Amino acid sequence: MKTDNCKEDTGLEAMRHSAAHVMAEAVRSLFPDARFGIGPAIDNGFYYDFELPRALTPDDLPIISDRMQSIIKQNLPFNRRDVCKDEARRIMADQPYKLELLDEIVDNETITIYDQGDFADLCRGPHVVGTGDIKVFKLTSIAGAYWRGDEHRPMLQRIYGAAFTTQKDLDDYITQQEEAAKRDHRKLGREMEIFAFDDDIGPGLPLWLPNGGALIEEIEKLAKDIELRQGYVRVKTPHVTKETLFERSGHLPYYADSMYPPMELEGVRYYIKPMNCPMHHKIFASKPRSYRDLPVRLAEYGTCYRYEKSGELFGLMRVRSMQMNDSHIYCTEGQFEQEFMSVIRLYLEYFKIFDIDEYFMRFSTHGDSGLGKKYVNNPELWHKTEDMVRDVIKSNNIPFVEIPDEAAFYGPKIDVQIKSAIGREFTLATNQVDFAQAERFELEYTSESGVKERPIIIHRAPLSTHERLIGFLLEHYGGSFPIWLAPVQTVIIPVTDRHIAYAEGLDTKLKEIGARVKVDSRADRMNAKIREAQMSHVPCMLVVGDKEMESDTVSVRLRSGEQKNGLPFMDFIHALKMAIVDKTKDFRV
Amino acid sequence: MKTDNCKEDTGLEAMRHSAAHVMAEAVRSLFPDARFGIGPAIDNGFYYDFELPRALTPDDLPIISDRMQSIIKQNLPFNRRDVCKDEARRIMADQPYKLELLDEIVDNETITIYDQGDFADLCRGPHVVGTGDIKVFKLTSIAGAYWRGDEHRPMLQRIYGAAFTTQKDLDDYITQQEEAAKRDHRKLGREMEIFAFDDDIGPGLPLWLPNGGALIEEIEKLAKDIELRQGYVRVKTPHVTKETLFERSGHLPYYADSMYPPMELEGVRYYIKPMNCPMHHKIFASKPRSYRDLPVRLAEYGTCYRYEKSGELFGLMRVRSMQMNDSHIYCTEGQFEQEFMSVIRLYLEYFKIFDIDEYFMRFSTHGDSGLGKKYVNNPELWHKTEDMVRDVIKSNNIPFVEIPDEAAFYGPKIDVQIKSAIGREFTLATNQVDFAQAERFELEYTSESGVKERPIIIHRAPLSTHERLIGFLLEHYGGSFPIWLAPVQTVIIPVTDRHIAYAEGLDTKLKEIGARVKVDSRADRMNAKIREAQMSHVPCMLVVGDKEMESDTVSVRLRSGEQKNGLPFMDFIHALKMAIVDKTKDFRV
Repeated sequence: MKTDNCKEDTGLEAMRHSAAHVMAEAVRSLFPDARFGIGPAIDNGFYYDFELPRALTPDDLPIISDRMQSIIKQNLPFNRRDVCKDEARRIMADQPYKLELLDEIVDNETITIYDQGDFADLCRGPHVVGTGDIKVFKLTSIAGAYWRGDEHRPMLQRIYGAAFTTQKDLDDYITQQEEAAKRDHRKLGREMEIFAFDDDIGPGLPLWLPNGGALIEEIEKLAKDIELRQGYVRVKTPHVTKETLFERSGHLPYYADSMYPPMELEGVRYYIKPMNCPMHHKIFASKPRSYRDLPVRLAEYGTCYRYEKSGELFGLMRVRSMQMNDSHIYCTEGQFEQEFMSVIRLYLEYFKIFDIDEYFMRFSTHGDSGLGKKYVNNPELWHKTEDMVRDVIKSNNIPFVEIPDEAAFYGPKIDVQIKSAIGREFTLATNQVDFAQAERFELEYTSESGVKERPIIIHRAPLSTHERLIGFLLEHYGGSFPIWLAPVQTVIIPVTDRHIAYAEGLDTKLKEIGARVKVDSRADRMNAKIREAQMSHVPCMLVVGDKEMESDTVSVRLRSGEQKNGLPFMDFIHALKMAIVDKTKDFRV
Repeated sequence: MKTDNCKEDTGLEAMRHSAAHVMAEAVRSLFPDARFGIGPAIDNGFYYDFELPRALTPDDLPIISDRMQSIIKQNLPFNRRDVCKDEARRIMADQPYKLELLDEIVDNETITIYDQGDFADLCRGPHVVGTGDIKVFKLTSIAGAYWRGDEHRPMLQRIYGAAFTTQKDLDDYITQQEEAAKRDHRKLGREMEIFAFDDDIGPGLPLWLPNGGALIEEIEKLAKDIELRQGYVRVKTPHVTKETLFERSGHLPYYADSMYPPMELEGVRYYIKPMNCPMHHKIFASKPRSYRDLPVRLAEYGTCYRYEKSGELFGLMRVRSMQMNDSHIYCTEGQFEQEFMSVIRLYLEYFKIFDIDEYFMRFSTHGDSGLGKKYVNNPELWHKTEDMVRDVIKSNNIPFVEIPDEAAFYGPKIDVQIKSAIGREFTLATNQVDFAQAERFELEYTSESGVKERPIIIHRAPLSTHERLIGFLLEHYGGSFPIWLAPVQTVIIPVTDRHIAYAEGLDTKLKEIGARVKVDSRADRMNAKIREAQMSHVPCMLVVGDKEMESDTVSVRLRSGEQKNGLPFMDFIHALKMAIVDKTKDFRV
């Protein structure tokens, strides 16, 4: 049978699914006329959709939870019945949503019903033996959900629950959820004035406020410094181009749905770019290249625009403008291994800087059956490239999972999965091998033996987009950025108005070393200012009064609460400078 | 009369105009069937447009020039005749272009004909007394020109000439022209691989090649460092926005012709931004502001797109994409003077860095008659603001000219005219006062007395756009950028293949201090490599052979030809670092 509400699995999933049935029974005991939608197990728990005579409130949850507990205490067995479709229709006669699901099952299929006590549900199972096997759970939230996800069908009420085998697992999960809510990048982004959306500008198009601008500048500086040392050169390409460019690249017409629509100018159609690749290929092609010029590593913080449906936009994680730390490396086959390894090493270098300890790589390879359809038809090159990539990541002890039949059209790819400080997983960077675009753009170099060859192209974006990276970092650090990255690195707090001039003198000197500093000269009390700086996650406060002014010192108060009074200002400036240069994780004086 | 080919002026201009008539007579002596278009005086000389039985070649110029000399030697007087229109038509009977000009003159107007010898021309004058008064001239070039600038009318042949009162003036002008041609930013941009255009991307949309990317990075770093110290904060805004933003700003519908056409998405029209102002205003409006928060100085290297007709595009000087060093300063009336002065000082600081010694400011003020039409109708505020601006620039001894009735709609403005090293004039930066947009965007702050007030806005772009600035700098330095700015700062030349490893070691160490270095390990001879680096305007070459390798030294050869052998590498790296930090004009070791 085919009802969507049940999954075939055992253990934890069966227990969660059984909890959904028990919740449905508890809801029925409160609302005898309840109509049931579907109630599957999900990651960390379960949900069930109901049509009820009134809207639920958070106060209903403990009542439903209590009734569930009493059902669990009775340890009612889950019984499976195999029935014919007519019998199933009879059992579910007062449940229109279940009848709709039954309508979609072919007539002679056997249908299963699961019962606990006198509660029967249409379900493929499996379940645990009895309700007593449901260990610990917690009902977490109520939400609206269209029947079958269709906005033209009725809106049902969904109750979410978490369920685990031990209380500790549940507690850990709840704590992580609470922490995640506190660290939600949309919440922190608003509170810390990182970014904003504006109705006159449009959905998915963030305005980066000064604090967000500071993060962007710092991240770009980091990337530019590191990548310059590693032999990248920086280019800059327009955001607008004639459509012929994307015809040549093969993006048009296939990719048009993900692009902004065209603009017509002097009879020519122009597009805003959804990616930088074809522009970089044009730069590679702008002069003859010899094998001696390779590898050519073109890098750009290019801003690209893609169309995502309004309904699918989500904070910084799903947007329409994307500022990418993008690069394309053009190399010979002989150089490929070393270049690919360098990119992987670059990832690891970045992870270290951003205190990312947990990561693994998803290595997506081709499937033979898709050759010539989903994949460029060159099996030999596929196997050779995949072997090279696999060897590189294995010999460097990089944790990875290999996923067959998920490569890009033009070559195998590596997506990097990272975990934030509170364990949430993000897909960050990407690293792709391309042996197709060079052909389309007629890219070539003169080899050592004097013949024209096509370069291999590596597409890489180790810091992803600013949008996604900053969204991740907000959650990862919970807003408490290390001092080198913090939008405001130091707030100077004059004790009274007569200390403002001294504070402003320090401000000037700190700005001269490129530090991001603010003087808080408002009329507020000192403690209120300290509290506000603390709330804004500013890593360091300098309190200056008479004593400090006379002795050219500062009283330093760190975000951690640590404090040091009477520090010579020159010592502070030196410590700050070092912490910024070294990208110190915990700034101390 | 109204023929366009004559200007009322005396002296130099009359002499140049007379030279045009003499050239016309000389051309007629070679081509008796020549038909004459117009022949005015222009800056530095004159031209005349002809319809001739065959295309001219450069070889024709000395022949025409010789015939002109012989007419000059005869010292034929210029005679003026006042005639009626019928008489003029009779005199010009075989000259259809002249007849067309005559058709446009009202019937009873008196028409003037100037004769020298038997050559008569329809002309308003004035002229010099005789052909002998034409001092020194040189025919410089031939070009095609549509009759009356209309591409649907016949293409005529135009001969350009330069004319001056002394041979020295002419020689200086010719030298300057030759120098300018050598320094033409399009020529240098191509030779030095700074930028390129591509047919698949579109006209006016430069691709910045790695050497151009290096200039952009260096200029942005400079601006960001300086402006951070001066209290600017950096923001980042999308390139795309809903049309409502430009309706609110008042740019639509009036400015639509200068914008890229709209894109329609989910029933909403989006535009690529032609300027950053409205986005910055939105950021100012994104939270409540108090007088204590002002001035707010929002800065962004925003890339804007404007529509210019294909035919009007010119290298980097007239483009469709503009990367602007843009900023908007929001201040109180009381802060205005200091903020405005700071901006002027910022200009001067930049000029010093870029070795711009000659500049003046065009101060455009309002005209009373345009109040409420061309200008915001607030005469008191106009006078007050203009007085403040005038005082500031006067008291700082900034050379300026005041131009009435050329202000922006929303306030007075200052455009900065600079001169390049060879004396060509460029309009670079702009600095505008705005007391209108704050109203449209409902921008406000709470004043000290607790009431809402509108901030004054200063728009400023002291480094103009990357396109215009880099175009200017290419000409100004003739490609020989100071070392801190040079796209490639040092080329390392190993004497033989066995010195390559040593060279690459130096390369790594130089990259670590952020220097832009290249190793030239090609098979070419050493002298060829030195010549090539010199031709590419690389400021410094390091030649390394056995002696250097053994003693950890380098032999330094500067662009100037200066040379120093056996310099300890650590001394070189120190000197280079200092020269970059200090932005030294002439790098020495």
